Amino acid sequence: MTFTDQLWSEIEPIYDAIMELPFIRELTEGTLPEEVFLFYLKQDTLYLADFSRTLSLAGVRSDRYDHMNSFFQYAANVAVVEGELHQDYYEQYGVEMEAEKSPSCFAYTNFLLSTAATKDNVVTIAALLPCFWIYREVGLEIYEEASADNPYREWIDTYAGDEFNEGVDRAITITDAVAEQEPEHRLGEMTEAFVKSTELEWMFWKSAYEQEQWPFEEAYGFEE
Amino acid sequence: MTFTDQLWSEIEPIYDAIMELPFIRELTEGTLPEEVFLFYLKQDTLYLADFSRTLSLAGVRSDRYDHMNSFFQYAANVAVVEGELHQDYYEQYGVEMEAEKSPSCFAYTNFLLSTAATKDNVVTIAALLPCFWIYREVGLEIYEEASADNPYREWIDTYAGDEFNEGVDRAITITDAVAEQEPEHRLGEMTEAFVKSTELEWMFWKSAYEQEQWPFEEAYGFEE
Amino acid sequence: MTFTDQLWSEIEPIYDAIMELPFIRELTEGTLPEEVFLFYLKQDTLYLADFSRTLSLAGVRSDRYDHMNSFFQYAANVAVVEGELHQDYYEQYGVEMEAEKSPSCFAYTNFLLSTAATKDNVVTIAALLPCFWIYREVGLEIYEEASADNPYREWIDTYAGDEFNEGVDRAITITDAVAEQEPEHRLGEMTEAFVKSTELEWMFWKSAYEQEQWPFEEAYGFEE
Amino acid sequence: MTFTDQLWSEIEPIYDAIMELPFIRELTEGTLPEEVFLFYLKQDTLYLADFSRTLSLAGVRSDRYDHMNSFFQYAANVAVVEGELHQDYYEQYGVEMEAEKSPSCFAYTNFLLSTAATKDNVVTIAALLPCFWIYREVGLEIYEEASADNPYREWIDTYAGDEFNEGVDRAITITDAVAEQEPEHRLGEMTEAFVKSTELEWMFWKSAYEQEQWPFEEAYGFEE
Repeated sequence: MTFTDQLWSEIEPIYDAIMELPFIRELTEGTLPEEVFLFYLKQDTLYLADFSRTLSLAGVRSDRYDHMNSFFQYAANVAVVEGELHQDYYEQYGVEMEAEKSPSCFAYTNFLLSTAATKDNVVTIAALLPCFWIYREVGLEIYEEASADNPYREWIDTYAGDEFNEGVDRAITITDAVAEQEPEHRLGEMTEAFVKSTELEWMFWKSAYEQEQWPFEEAYGFEE
Repeated sequence: MTFTDQLWSEIEPIYDAIMELPFIRELTEGTLPEEVFLFYLKQDTLYLADFSRTLSLAGVRSDRYDHMNSFFQYAANVAVVEGELHQDYYEQYGVEMEAEKSPSCFAYTNFLLSTAATKDNVVTIAALLPCFWIYREVGLEIYEEASADNPYREWIDTYAGDEFNEGVDRAITITDAVAEQEPEHRLGEMTEAFVKSTELEWMFWKSAYEQEQWPFEEAYGFEE
Repeated sequence: MTFTDQLWSEIEPIYDAIMELPFIRELTEGTLPEEVFLFYLKQDTLYLADFSRTLSLAGVRSDRYDHMNSFFQYAANVAVVEGELHQDYYEQYGVEMEAEKSPSCFAYTNFLLSTAATKDNVVTIAALLPCFWIYREVGLEIYEEASADNPYREWIDTYAGDEFNEGVDRAITITDAVAEQEPEHRLGEMTEAFVKSTELEWMFWKSAYEQEQWPFEEAYGFEE
Repeated sequence: MTFTDQLWSEIEPIYDAIMELPFIRELTEGTLPEEVFLFYLKQDTLYLADFSRTLSLAGVRSDRYDHMNSFFQYAANVAVVEGELHQDYYEQYGVEMEAEKSPSCFAYTNFLLSTAATKDNVVTIAALLPCFWIYREVGLEIYEEASADNPYREWIDTYAGDEFNEGVDRAITITDAVAEQEPEHRLGEMTEAFVKSTELEWMFWKSAYEQEQWPFEEAYGFEE
């Protein structure tokens, strides 16, 4: 059993909970309200900017040249390729990408960046993995069930595609490679970070469905 | 009107909301349940560790030698002096300092650290200021109203004391000094960071009163 | 006169000194000893790893999405594309890429990384620019003079090529764009960093020709 | 044999070479020219600013609360206490602290900072140790030999004093504590960093005696 197999077994209850979220169910059925999808998409644009920043930071602190290269490739691809997928949607729906991070997006992105700012690099690598791995598994499950005319087909095809799949395999391979050389206590930190990111994935999709607002603004109508 | 005067005027509605929180009212009256105070104290211990980390990072990126020194002094003092205040309480109440960050503590600390990891240093300095300034103002208001036998007297005296007061004045002076040299767009970023930290101060106290839990754990009884 | 025009005028004496270095003259004439070229190439491989790390860090701290993307693209390209150019040479000459950083390579790479670790991002951007700009200008001058059968033709063609040229133009454009919003004192810091990196370019080529060793090891024959 | 015992055995030849440097001999005899001592002192002021920055960064990435506190205390003490020792000398000699980093100071400080920016924290901790440890050993040897009226008595007394001594012991203890949990390959990286810093200590003192200049400026009379 590889280290990443162990990681996955840790988060199975959270993964199951993700698959049961109304967001995922309605995305699969194609009944997700456009407004909710756009809320999600804008938050995801904000998320991906900081995800690519954290990937870069993981590259900066990688000893192995091939790992460094992989992280720099990821950062460049996330920023460009996924940026394009999102821009296409904004144009298609005729909306502007203008949004403030929701509390859950804020919590997740700042967790990734602050992990990179304060922890050993292997912990950052573990914190980055769920966004790859969960997206692939969720993408594949939706892909099998969704009909051809699902309005979110392009999104679904991306995360169920070969290119994305290879990137995820590589991220898993890197995680196992670096974990192999670490003492037990650091594997514990890696697991903790992996579980926390997965929990934040659940919060991210849940909060998109709820079009989550900031509590102070909700309570007091305060506008920053 | 100094730049920090402007900053304060931006957050007055949030400051007023903080003063009206049940946590603050009951702390002032001395009726705050011990359990709530201890929840707060543990979260504050976790908060202060990352607050001192962010202070350190602000020192690292300070050009001016005197600013660097001030931030390094703050970091050392927060870690030691406040660490002692908290330890005294844990001993007094006979409890262990064992806690996971609450969602609001998580959001606030990771915001500070990720600001230091991705923004210009003046923005980090602005993000750090509310924890000094709000605590002094809250501390002074409580100090005037609280009775001598308030069970949280030691806490109150610390934040209303001269030493803390001088530290806050110095933090305000540094913020004005660095702001003076910045273009308009960066003053905007500083203001945004200052407001966000203040909002997170409100969330922090509010969440302590509610003994906030993680939503996934609440929903599924999941234990990390 | 743009800010980058001013930067270039500051370093003209250093640029002229670079063009007069035996390394550059013999590279142009094709008479540079293979051993010297290989010493240079290995140091350059070590240099480029940290250059790409610093490019990544500049992307992490870029506010503008398009600047962030450019830096992430640079980092990915440097690591991969130039890595390949170098690997081809190592295979062609049948040598292993095994080397410790020379003192000048050590000074230059650590300057770039520590600038990113302690200065505002615009200063890092200015520190990164000479490696782009000087290489293009040197590359173009050599390209015009070198004969078709120059043994270092592939190296020369890379740095005189269109793709590299466009990357350099973009780096200059970004530098001018960020400089436009900065106060005078920070333009001073940017200039200082740009001049220092240029001086380190001169040292780098000079030290390659001299196959520079560490002074302690030279004095005492100490092997790490 | 502790890990730090092994570290020391690695650098004994460099330590011996340091003790034989004209700078150290003449400092001990009290015959070191004032001009040379002042050159050294100014470089040391520049060095200590970045040494305290690196100490801070080591604190930021320390998991253990007590280690974090120690590093923050070091950073605050270096910046203040040693800053004062140096300021006293500048006043005593009636000189201004105005200097650009010498190449060796530049190499050493940027090595420390870039280690903190790219390596695991234990490697940074190992890179920081020689400045503590070598100074104590050098300080004690000089202390025993120097006469009471040595003009550099105050400097000598500081580094041979109890307070400094305790700080050094603590730094050694931290290094052993973190090393205990690391795999072999990372102990190798720690050793490499410790040896490189020691070599840079040798270069620093050597370069002070030679009042080292930048090679480009020497060759071309260029003034930045």
